[in-house]
Amino acid sequence: MGGFAAATAVRRVAEGRYAVELDGDFGIEQAINGGYSLAVMTRALLEDSPHPHPIATSASFLRVAKAGPAEVRVEPLKAGRTAAVARVTLVQNDQALVEALITTGTLDGDAAPVYSIEQEKLPPIEECLEFAPNNGFARQVDVRYDPATMGWLDGRPAGVPEMRGYLRLREPYEPDGILLALAVDALPPVVLNAGASGWAPTVELTWHMRAVPAPGRLAVHGRARLVSDGWFDEEIEVWDSAGRLVAQSRQIARVGRGR
Amino acid sequence: MGGFAAATAVRRVAEGRYAVELDGDFGIEQAINGGYSLAVMTRALLEDSPHPHPIATSASFLRVAKAGPAEVRVEPLKAGRTAAVARVTLVQNDQALVEALITTGTLDGDAAPVYSIEQEKLPPIEECLEFAPNNGFARQVDVRYDPATMGWLDGRPAGVPEMRGYLRLREPYEPDGILLALAVDALPPVVLNAGASGWAPTVELTWHMRAVPAPGRLAVHGRARLVSDGWFDEEIEVWDSAGRLVAQSRQIARVGRGR
Repeated sequence: MGGFAAATAVRRVAEGRYAVELDGDFGIEQAINGGYSLAVMTRALLEDSPHPHPIATSASFLRVAKAGPAEVRVEPLKAGRTAAVARVTLVQNDQALVEALITTGTLDGDAAPVYSIEQEKLPPIEECLEFAPNNGFARQVDVRYDPATMGWLDGRPAGVPEMRGYLRLREPYEPDGILLALAVDALPPVVLNAGASGWAPTVELTWHMRAVPAPGRLAVHGRARLVSDGWFDEEIEVWDSAGRLVAQSRQIARVGRGR
Repeated sequence: MGGFAAATAVRRVAEGRYAVELDGDFGIEQAINGGYSLAVMTRALLEDSPHPHPIATSASFLRVAKAGPAEVRVEPLKAGRTAAVARVTLVQNDQALVEALITTGTLDGDAAPVYSIEQEKLPPIEECLEFAPNNGFARQVDVRYDPATMGWLDGRPAGVPEMRGYLRLREPYEPDGILLALAVDALPPVVLNAGASGWAPTVELTWHMRAVPAPGRLAVHGRARLVSDGWFDEEIEVWDSAGRLVAQSRQIARVGRGR
């Protein structure tokens, strides 16, 4: 289809109801990507939100979304001067697929951090690998992976549940709050580097937009802290081309059981 | 009042509706603590949940809760074999105060981690400080603080937004999913060690229960990664007496502006 901007387009059909067309390119086989679902939901919310930036998004993934028509329903819960909160639901065939609470606010693009951790090392992009299987997601999203985190591809997982890379869209589209929603769920599951294989379904994902990203590629750093009892956490930090932490996420997901 | 067990008691008044009495001891002045609110909401949810453990809780704090009668409303969204999801709302005077999505599941108390980070250092409890202002919270919750993270008390903040300590209730009550909800929001704001002062209102908090905690004191490690533009994240890890990571949280909050 027509790329990320087109794939996140929303059409207001009634008060708090937006028609969307989920693009199968942003998925693996029939399952629509969770981050793309959140990007669509965020775009719908921002149509009528009193604030422009998705400060906090918490989402429960109830059922797998499929390519095709869907609807985003927005129900405002609070509209304050600093923050507004809404319940946002992605619906398909009258079933809720993703339910989210999204807090919007207004970030200052020029804010200088009072305190920040430092970005962990990522090799220069020339040393990174393009892993482009023949699927729609790779045709839309250009990710260059740190080779240290891609051993799982050759059956030699690093043993540490990490995944890192540079991300941008293949179309001209500079980072914003919508793209950050995609970026926090765009890498292969970090547990592929801890011996797991196959699809790792996200149960819950929360992400925070922390700064307005500068133009250019995003650096995406993912890791788990605990893999146990069939569950793992995946934490993503997204850094912009100016070296600022622009988004943080954590999801809880099920460890894949192989193909 | 009567301690944590009594303060989190719920009474079913109708399908999905539970009467509760918010105990002013679990608050500072008139504001009820966010973690205590989540503990009450979790207890209500677990009354009729198909699974016993709150795997993922994402909460938006809409309005300040006050001591006194309140109601928890539970609306199931999905009941699966691995996970069930419900919308849970704390209501007072017909206003929603806290809205949460809670995923429950069943953790195996004997699960051995496939991968785990290691616990960061915490001094032995004998070297930790009791900071017990004359308030209800300190009468109910026994926290012993790492002195390295308490410089802010004497006007000498460490400069790093961290806070660490051991936590248990003063009543006989061994850790469970309800107490973990309290533990992830029980420390003073980490930004007190980065020069901020005063109340730091939580806007959104998500926490995950990762293992069934062993009896004994909990170790609670808190830190921020970015303080910028009036916002900070606070990440808490809770470790049990057996040295296992039992809970993880991140909240996004507003930096206090002093008194």
